[in-house]
Amino acid sequence: MSDTPFSFRVTHTDGLARRGTMTTAHGTVETPAFMPVGTQGAVKAITHRDLESLGAEIMLANTYHLYLRPGDALIARQGGLHRFAGWSRPILTDSGGYQVFSLASRRTITEEGARFRSHLDGSAHLLTPEKAADIQAHLGSDIAMALDECVAHPCGVREAADATARTLRWARRGRDRVLALRARTVDGVTISNDGQAQFGIVQGSVYPELRKESASETVAVGFEGYAIGGLSVGEPTGVMYDIVSQTAPCLPAHQPRYLMGTGMPEDLVESVARGIDLFDCVLPTRNARNGQLFTTEGRLNIKNARYAEDARPPDPACACYTCRTFSRAYLRHLFLAGEIGAATLNTLHNLNFYLDTMRRIRDAIAFGRFERFRLAFHQSLSRQALDS
Amino acid sequence: MSDTPFSFRVTHTDGLARRGTMTTAHGTVETPAFMPVGTQGAVKAITHRDLESLGAEIMLANTYHLYLRPGDALIARQGGLHRFAGWSRPILTDSGGYQVFSLASRRTITEEGARFRSHLDGSAHLLTPEKAADIQAHLGSDIAMALDECVAHPCGVREAADATARTLRWARRGRDRVLALRARTVDGVTISNDGQAQFGIVQGSVYPELRKESASETVAVGFEGYAIGGLSVGEPTGVMYDIVSQTAPCLPAHQPRYLMGTGMPEDLVESVARGIDLFDCVLPTRNARNGQLFTTEGRLNIKNARYAEDARPPDPACACYTCRTFSRAYLRHLFLAGEIGAATLNTLHNLNFYLDTMRRIRDAIAFGRFERFRLAFHQSLSRQALDS
Repeated sequence: MSDTPFSFRVTHTDGLARRGTMTTAHGTVETPAFMPVGTQGAVKAITHRDLESLGAEIMLANTYHLYLRPGDALIARQGGLHRFAGWSRPILTDSGGYQVFSLASRRTITEEGARFRSHLDGSAHLLTPEKAADIQAHLGSDIAMALDECVAHPCGVREAADATARTLRWARRGRDRVLALRARTVDGVTISNDGQAQFGIVQGSVYPELRKESASETVAVGFEGYAIGGLSVGEPTGVMYDIVSQTAPCLPAHQPRYLMGTGMPEDLVESVARGIDLFDCVLPTRNARNGQLFTTEGRLNIKNARYAEDARPPDPACACYTCRTFSRAYLRHLFLAGEIGAATLNTLHNLNFYLDTMRRIRDAIAFGRFERFRLAFHQSLSRQALDS
Repeated sequence: MSDTPFSFRVTHTDGLARRGTMTTAHGTVETPAFMPVGTQGAVKAITHRDLESLGAEIMLANTYHLYLRPGDALIARQGGLHRFAGWSRPILTDSGGYQVFSLASRRTITEEGARFRSHLDGSAHLLTPEKAADIQAHLGSDIAMALDECVAHPCGVREAADATARTLRWARRGRDRVLALRARTVDGVTISNDGQAQFGIVQGSVYPELRKESASETVAVGFEGYAIGGLSVGEPTGVMYDIVSQTAPCLPAHQPRYLMGTGMPEDLVESVARGIDLFDCVLPTRNARNGQLFTTEGRLNIKNARYAEDARPPDPACACYTCRTFSRAYLRHLFLAGEIGAATLNTLHNLNFYLDTMRRIRDAIAFGRFERFRLAFHQSLSRQALDS
């Protein structure tokens, strides 16, 4: 199916949950895995070395942002995103489509692609399935995503069906482009990573029939992996879980399944229980910068007055640098003083919490005790919800 | 002279330059030393562990800021600044006077002290020599500074003489207070650090006679060390060097000499050549956040367009994490994208440059080749001034 070094092997299953190893051109990723979001080629507020020491095996970067600034051609001339950003582990890039839908102005969708104006300088751009593939070839990520059309929530079934059908046509065009790039039959595009894989994206909003159709037809195109897109866009959590439950079994068992943009820690556990292998989300990093910490006992808002003289670490059960070294009182002080270090220390903790949760999930699956882990995880969260 | 564990020993001299070891209640500091500024109990944009790994042996914290927020009494209840901030190495605190002069509004100076309004909430405060000692007792720094009156530049000789005389009277009151605190004859003040030393401050603006008089009378009060204040406030560099040259010999040879608020890398070298042991300055950290990097070849403004595709590290001669890992092109991208990480990586580099310069100074003095080092340092800087 593919001439890339990309491969995926499920090593353990426990119910629908899977533990696996994903091999990319820049190394392996143990799954289920959480991918910290490095929008500009860097996870906000922490250094690459700190991110590596937290155990992050793969980073997500945003095609839309890097395309606009510093530009994918510049990054290609610098040897690709890994070399440019000084990050040697795997990278997944999104297609740019989601940011076009959420950030850009004067957006119009046609069969050709998405026309939009840059949120930075108002310049006009056209993102097509081919262009999304070319930009990601320049970036040289290990996993590129096909361009899709993500509809908002709520969305009528007719509109959802149209967007899903267009996403499928775009998937075929995007896949054709990647195969042409691999065959070196495209001029003017620098291939920064010979081993780049490409994932297709299943759409269909909250409609199970659309989702199943989208899944089977996207799989028929033939990608190295598959994502479920268009969730975590405002629908109730139960609806999201149901759609994941109904969609995941329609995806090939021997290929990675990626739930895009999700989510809360409990969403990761619940989605793994439904057969998902990969996640990304801005919550741990964005909330850290806003002073919200994820802990084994729920969320903690460090700016609350109740922590002014609280000498305990944010999460007494946590072994991260922040929890080993600093008190809630000090972290609150740094946050209220507007110190950059508050963002750094909170981000270190939150990412450790997410990455450690994934480690515990992987261990639980490997030892056939995932259901016990799942139960204990929810019990701990509900026992004492801190500030949530 | 003192019942604190504080001591200072000059181990090598080379011309007027001195290499020494300063012992405090929280460990030793090799001198000449640069003290990174941790205004709020944290050096901006980097973690304590990164600061330690750069080799920083002592941090400066600002009494004015910590007094206003979170409050010195709160910090005392949390066990003092070391424990509150999770920093176990030595800390020097300033008296708060300089920030009252530079940040606070509606400031009036009387013999009693400095009345001012907080820059945070407009609340009214009175900082006296005794109050400055009490606050620093609460903070529990290893070195406390006496309250002084720092005049602006330019300043007439009459005004300078008045401020210098008042600084001396305040020095006596501040010293009396510290001795009373040590003797446990002051109620209502928590001593967070039994081993705190206190330094006096020499003033006198740009007037050599005032400086000499201030030095001899401040030394007569009897502190554990002495600072030269009121420089790096806008006077020409040559004037600063002359005042340091004339003042340093008036200070005891067996006690540490601290030049407050200085300065550029070349100022550190020139002041060591005149007998200074300790420095602090916001330049390496503040300029880092503004995109200016100190290198062996001069200053480099990372936002300059010329670096857009420059794959070289900021300073090819530097072994810091930033220079080992990242290109000028990437650091420029992070800076222009407004990433917090730009501040972190630039700060790591600039502090490494300052702390490494001090290491090289100490080595040069120990091996009797400080004058050769001094010459080579200036030659390297002037050979190719980058963006300065």
